[in-house]
Amino acid sequence: MVRRPVYVLNGTNLNMLGRREPHLYGGTTLAQIKDRVEALASELGITLEFRQTNHEGVMIDWIQEAFERDAAVIINPAGFSFDCIPILDALKLIRPPLVEVHITNIHARGEQYQHSLVSLIATGVIAGLGASGYLLALRHIAEILDEPAPA
Amino acid sequence: MVRRPVYVLNGTNLNMLGRREPHLYGGTTLAQIKDRVEALASELGITLEFRQTNHEGVMIDWIQEAFERDAAVIINPAGFSFDCIPILDALKLIRPPLVEVHITNIHARGEQYQHSLVSLIATGVIAGLGASGYLLALRHIAEILDEPAPA
Amino acid sequence: MVRRPVYVLNGTNLNMLGRREPHLYGGTTLAQIKDRVEALASELGITLEFRQTNHEGVMIDWIQEAFERDAAVIINPAGFSFDCIPILDALKLIRPPLVEVHITNIHARGEQYQHSLVSLIATGVIAGLGASGYLLALRHIAEILDEPAPA
Amino acid sequence: MVRRPVYVLNGTNLNMLGRREPHLYGGTTLAQIKDRVEALASELGITLEFRQTNHEGVMIDWIQEAFERDAAVIINPAGFSFDCIPILDALKLIRPPLVEVHITNIHARGEQYQHSLVSLIATGVIAGLGASGYLLALRHIAEILDEPAPA
Amino acid sequence: MVRRPVYVLNGTNLNMLGRREPHLYGGTTLAQIKDRVEALASELGITLEFRQTNHEGVMIDWIQEAFERDAAVIINPAGFSFDCIPILDALKLIRPPLVEVHITNIHARGEQYQHSLVSLIATGVIAGLGASGYLLALRHIAEILDEPAPA
Amino acid sequence: MVRRPVYVLNGTNLNMLGRREPHLYGGTTLAQIKDRVEALASELGITLEFRQTNHEGVMIDWIQEAFERDAAVIINPAGFSFDCIPILDALKLIRPPLVEVHITNIHARGEQYQHSLVSLIATGVIAGLGASGYLLALRHIAEILDEPAPA
Amino acid sequence: MVRRPVYVLNGTNLNMLGRREPHLYGGTTLAQIKDRVEALASELGITLEFRQTNHEGVMIDWIQEAFERDAAVIINPAGFSFDCIPILDALKLIRPPLVEVHITNIHARGEQYQHSLVSLIATGVIAGLGASGYLLALRHIAEILDEPAPA
Amino acid sequence: MVRRPVYVLNGTNLNMLGRREPHLYGGTTLAQIKDRVEALASELGITLEFRQTNHEGVMIDWIQEAFERDAAVIINPAGFSFDCIPILDALKLIRPPLVEVHITNIHARGEQYQHSLVSLIATGVIAGLGASGYLLALRHIAEILDEPAPA
Amino acid sequence: MVRRPVYVLNGTNLNMLGRREPHLYGGTTLAQIKDRVEALASELGITLEFRQTNHEGVMIDWIQEAFERDAAVIINPAGFSFDCIPILDALKLIRPPLVEVHITNIHARGEQYQHSLVSLIATGVIAGLGASGYLLALRHIAEILDEPAPA
Amino acid sequence: MVRRPVYVLNGTNLNMLGRREPHLYGGTTLAQIKDRVEALASELGITLEFRQTNHEGVMIDWIQEAFERDAAVIINPAGFSFDCIPILDALKLIRPPLVEVHITNIHARGEQYQHSLVSLIATGVIAGLGASGYLLALRHIAEILDEPAPA
Amino acid sequence: MVRRPVYVLNGTNLNMLGRREPHLYGGTTLAQIKDRVEALASELGITLEFRQTNHEGVMIDWIQEAFERDAAVIINPAGFSFDCIPILDALKLIRPPLVEVHITNIHARGEQYQHSLVSLIATGVIAGLGASGYLLALRHIAEILDEPAPA
Amino acid sequence: MVRRPVYVLNGTNLNMLGRREPHLYGGTTLAQIKDRVEALASELGITLEFRQTNHEGVMIDWIQEAFERDAAVIINPAGFSFDCIPILDALKLIRPPLVEVHITNIHARGEQYQHSLVSLIATGVIAGLGASGYLLALRHIAEILDEPAPA
Repeated sequence: MVRRPVYVLNGTNLNMLGRREPHLYGGTTLAQIKDRVEALASELGITLEFRQTNHEGVMIDWIQEAFERDAAVIINPAGFSFDCIPILDALKLIRPPLVEVHITNIHARGEQYQHSLVSLIATGVIAGLGASGYLLALRHIAEILDEPAPA
Repeated sequence: MVRRPVYVLNGTNLNMLGRREPHLYGGTTLAQIKDRVEALASELGITLEFRQTNHEGVMIDWIQEAFERDAAVIINPAGFSFDCIPILDALKLIRPPLVEVHITNIHARGEQYQHSLVSLIATGVIAGLGASGYLLALRHIAEILDEPAPA
Repeated sequence: MVRRPVYVLNGTNLNMLGRREPHLYGGTTLAQIKDRVEALASELGITLEFRQTNHEGVMIDWIQEAFERDAAVIINPAGFSFDCIPILDALKLIRPPLVEVHITNIHARGEQYQHSLVSLIATGVIAGLGASGYLLALRHIAEILDEPAPA
Repeated sequence: MVRRPVYVLNGTNLNMLGRREPHLYGGTTLAQIKDRVEALASELGITLEFRQTNHEGVMIDWIQEAFERDAAVIINPAGFSFDCIPILDALKLIRPPLVEVHITNIHARGEQYQHSLVSLIATGVIAGLGASGYLLALRHIAEILDEPAPA
Repeated sequence: MVRRPVYVLNGTNLNMLGRREPHLYGGTTLAQIKDRVEALASELGITLEFRQTNHEGVMIDWIQEAFERDAAVIINPAGFSFDCIPILDALKLIRPPLVEVHITNIHARGEQYQHSLVSLIATGVIAGLGASGYLLALRHIAEILDEPAPA
Repeated sequence: MVRRPVYVLNGTNLNMLGRREPHLYGGTTLAQIKDRVEALASELGITLEFRQTNHEGVMIDWIQEAFERDAAVIINPAGFSFDCIPILDALKLIRPPLVEVHITNIHARGEQYQHSLVSLIATGVIAGLGASGYLLALRHIAEILDEPAPA
Repeated sequence: MVRRPVYVLNGTNLNMLGRREPHLYGGTTLAQIKDRVEALASELGITLEFRQTNHEGVMIDWIQEAFERDAAVIINPAGFSFDCIPILDALKLIRPPLVEVHITNIHARGEQYQHSLVSLIATGVIAGLGASGYLLALRHIAEILDEPAPA
Repeated sequence: MVRRPVYVLNGTNLNMLGRREPHLYGGTTLAQIKDRVEALASELGITLEFRQTNHEGVMIDWIQEAFERDAAVIINPAGFSFDCIPILDALKLIRPPLVEVHITNIHARGEQYQHSLVSLIATGVIAGLGASGYLLALRHIAEILDEPAPA
Repeated sequence: MVRRPVYVLNGTNLNMLGRREPHLYGGTTLAQIKDRVEALASELGITLEFRQTNHEGVMIDWIQEAFERDAAVIINPAGFSFDCIPILDALKLIRPPLVEVHITNIHARGEQYQHSLVSLIATGVIAGLGASGYLLALRHIAEILDEPAPA
Repeated sequence: MVRRPVYVLNGTNLNMLGRREPHLYGGTTLAQIKDRVEALASELGITLEFRQTNHEGVMIDWIQEAFERDAAVIINPAGFSFDCIPILDALKLIRPPLVEVHITNIHARGEQYQHSLVSLIATGVIAGLGASGYLLALRHIAEILDEPAPA
Repeated sequence: MVRRPVYVLNGTNLNMLGRREPHLYGGTTLAQIKDRVEALASELGITLEFRQTNHEGVMIDWIQEAFERDAAVIINPAGFSFDCIPILDALKLIRPPLVEVHITNIHARGEQYQHSLVSLIATGVIAGLGASGYLLALRHIAEILDEPAPA
Repeated sequence: MVRRPVYVLNGTNLNMLGRREPHLYGGTTLAQIKDRVEALASELGITLEFRQTNHEGVMIDWIQEAFERDAAVIINPAGFSFDCIPILDALKLIRPPLVEVHITNIHARGEQYQHSLVSLIATGVIAGLGASGYLLALRHIAEILDEPAPA
């Protein structure tokens, strides 16, 4: 059986990670996270796509691409989390698992950042565990993908 | 250096796990989770307290006990998540890391279950990843405890 | 066929019935209600547990006990009615019928008392009919228990 | 002493009972309920008026008629429950007991159906116990009417 | 020049005036008000229609009739004041003056009674001055009708 | 196979169409709309009932009649659109298609007119296309009625 | 018996009447209103104080003065109507009748102007009848003052 | 006279029609809709542009292009319907008719999907009639474009 | 005449005073407060019960005990202040004076802490004056208890 | 070291104390309170300014004067408590202690009176203890002023 | 042509500028601002009135005076910005330009300070640019006053 | 010292300025504004980038570019002002000054346009002064950039 690939999709301004509000987001860059996630994917034997965009339309295109390839998805929607129905609609295409990751604990931040629309349809959410959220999500997905499908 | 212990505290009705709304919470029992978490703790060399209570006052007493022992905490507050200021106040005593775990993705459930007060002060939150949320949380805390403290 | 028992569970401050805000709750004591309910149960051939507690945790334990015995439940949650997710969660364990009783018409009282969370999952609600609400609930449950189960 | 009569007043679409959303309202027709209520009234020696209308103005006229005859009232306001100040105003004319009955547990239904205005002034409310709610209400009223008036 | 007639239209339960919540509405009956208003109309040389109905549809028909006769209108919408878009829509047909009268000061009553929809389109509102509100309204309309139209 | 008839039901004040707020509703009268709709129905071979009422109770009776005849329904609820649970309840009886029509674009009007309750259960809604909304609705229903039922 | 005097108190910017937003407030000046009100008072044999101020503190002082003289009060609070608790508190000193007058129909204006706090304690309110609102209020108060006090 | 062209603009994820939530959106693809709409346009002699994009900026560019060509517009904004002020602002450029189409009845869906901003400025809205909504809209626009302009 | 005793009841986490968020609550421990309050009680000749609990049920039991002994009550409800109807209900049993004390000025804290339910029924509230709030409350109660009862 | 003076500032309508709503505010006059407060100040060796005004601007001037003299402040803002940003802004000038006093328990009164803006910045609040609130506040401030400043 | 004068009006507590919350408002005093504004006015040939008051009534009087002189107005309403209908009403008298200035960026401050009522009718608003906001406003007004009036 | 450049960034639909809702936005085109701003920049010796885009992603890229060049920013976010968290997040990268400009007074427009998210983090806001808002912003920034940095 061919294993499903995993898309790790990153939203707006995450290309600035490490330089953007480091008191909140920490000093790790997205390139460093990419390296660590790819290393783990390699170790787990998972085909990985790791991408970032500031463009909503591009993000939607990628989600549709993931759908076409029947991928599992890890998404850090960042600025797309909060009022972005088009992303929400696209993500409904994805067959689970779909894990949402946030670097910070968004629930403890200001009102604008507390309620992610994406959470309404995600399988699960990891928030506030920094860069290691990505790794935990990938590890969790790997386990799921290895489980036999329910009858 | 003596490593800080980890308290894994479970709130109301989690003793019914596996029998309670299994379409939501799955078939794994709390005893099974306890076994898996203790096994991992043992492997990671972590001293663990794993407990469950239906009594708010008892939960507060345990959190205060964790505070006295300078423990890190993993809490699945369950029914205590939503309007329970006394638990919130007690948890403010805990020195991070404090990781909140929910079996289900509470953000995707009914209005009563969407907004955990505990999230306002937790280091991070893992929701919707089922029993493995506990293991991911413990793995994450182990890493944190091994990091040198910031100067 | 053995008939299911009936638990009659009373929440906070109902032990003060007859002395607490008698202009609202009337002069009947909980002991008097217990006598009348037990007499009717006896007449109907129903095994009855009639209890009261001021402790949320104890109430949860009793509800779980009722679940273990597959009991039908009459509950006057009193102060537990309004923001108490743990009780709500526990009651979801109960197989119907589950009848909620309030001495007063809570819908006609102040804002804090108008919206019982328990009503969201109860089979039915009787409010404002005083102590006789218990008797009507029991009479109704007896009829239900005697009905043949739906195929 | 002449006993007060009892009006049983049914609001909009209840003439469709048994055929209207039977998964919610059950298969019993209003005619069947009428038969059972009249039988019980007869047994209890109570003069009964049992009526249904889809017209708000007619309902108001009947409530005023009940007022003229100093009747006790059982009302299933159905669609008139929720925003209908004219019915509310008319019902304020009625001397208690005034018992509100709903076939379904309205508190567990959608937002539009959760908050009955009539409950603000009813003596009591029975909801979710199906057709037997009428019988319980009548039985309760019979007891009240037999009580000696307070000095 | 023929003077425009005046319709005085009374909504739900005003036929019970004098007997309905007399602590709020006073002891004057609608028949007495009618006599006083007709006497004043006669004195002012005004053609008057004074009516009451509990039926929304009838009220709409009357408002349309007033429109056909180009009448000025005094309306005490009573229970129709608060959520009744059909009455509001019908009243938009009326050429001013359109004066809304309430026996009680609705702004000082409970939440349900504070905000009349009709006020959104009335020329003016008189509330809380009891039966004399009708007379003041009529006196005011008489003055307006005698004013030369604006060029 | 006998084709289902179509009821075209018009709510409050639509008998004033052409004269009522013509800047909003245009100058076409309901009689003219009736002629055009009947002509189209005749052309499409559809049995049509075209009616208007200002009385909520009458509207409910007609909807129940449509239900008895298994009719498809086009409804312009007008003033009944916004807070009228009894109409909503009655319309739930109707087997689709049920098309809601509004002469004006209600979503672009004042707050009172923006949210039709009827839309919650309609198959579809056409708003703001004036009198031709009726014709489009009828044309659409004709197509639906000709489709073979899903297996 | 000495008759109680009447204070006619006018709030902010009413000294600009006739020049301020004349499309809303009309062209009559406050001096003209004063003349007409004084003429009517004289005709009715009433002692009158007619005043205007832009200063909240002065208005409170005048209301306290009216209280000292046991005056009836007609108040057009204008800008003091909406959030001004100090005026509200002062007016609670006044023995009825206390009639609130607004030149415009405030209920039909923008959100800021729709809900007068003063209405919560006024005997009655006249809004939207222009300058004649003052005269109607005075005429009404004169009648009240002549009524024998309730036993 | 040259007839104005018609732009049919489709928003986010509509390129997935037929595969995306088919229980909601049906099995028809956008290509099939395009064929049917183009066929009708051809039959009606209308110049048509039929496009889809997932990119907000592209949609704005197209709307501006439609404005430059003085086109009438049919828009299914899909995910752009709900919080997208930039689309709303661009659409204000369009000279009517501007018809909004939704495949599903958005008013009957979850809270996020109920209130389209675009509806605030559209000429009219057709929702819930599936793919035929496009055809009805085009047919309606064709009639409008043939009407002589108001003097 | 025997003087009424005074219960000083402390809610959740106050046993951590001095160590819990000392920047908010200060460094004084509950034991120190107890000493100072008992010393003052002794000086004033008052019988005192000074207690703390983290258990809601225990707090209710103590309030009922205070009721049995007709005690005056000083309560620092701490975490029980905000959503705890059972405590509110129990406190309604207490004959005044009932003084609520908070170490911090809760009105100046976050939203969760601003509105104490207990304040709705307390005689008075002292907040933000630190430990001396207890002493001021006791001093005030002593004066009240010495006043002759109103006739 | 020269001790800081204490300003006791009283807002609107407090000059009517003893005569204004005595069922709420009691029968003590402001002059009597002034005497008692001045006596205590004298006993404690505190320089006192005790003032009352109905004028917001005067109150602001006094608060600025208190600021110039580095005074501690006791304020009963009365009607200025609720929406009065200018008073709030002025009070931010004051160096603590700043104690807010209310004769009545404002939290137990109507919605308009429940939330004092001043509480957002006061050191502490005493409400509902009548005139003795002033004395307790002064006693508390005296203690604070005698404490050595924090290093 | 005589040029219109410019009134620069400053609200509550601005006389404390430089000493009041300097971390927010900076260290510049109002006298310094006055000097700079007057220097610029002199340079631009503009007649200037620069004033400050803590008294709402005085501010209203000044606005009316500005109206009498047909002045353009720069206003920093400060504490009068937020709930002050009387100021809002007075400012409606002013013929544009009317520029509102705030030292701080009020939109970025606490909830009480975010929404200025004055902005609803101002020509424009400059916030957060400190003292130079006055100068920019004056420079802008000078340009406007020199423009020829629209035909 | 090299002076920081200034980016002037314009959001959606501003390329239509002069043709888009000219009654609101005036007849000046963006090209004309660009010319005037560039002329002033040249006069002030400031390096300027003046751009416009309808694409959110492009705007984010430009803001990140401005961050890389340590530019000061003038932004007219237009349609991006209101719900656009990604723009907000990007702008947090910018070192002040960051001045937000709106052609119209957004605070005086409809609800959708009143609350700019960008204002939450801007240094200051200029709204309603038309095209000259850009020039005033640039003039203000030039002054700031010339100030010596705070120590």
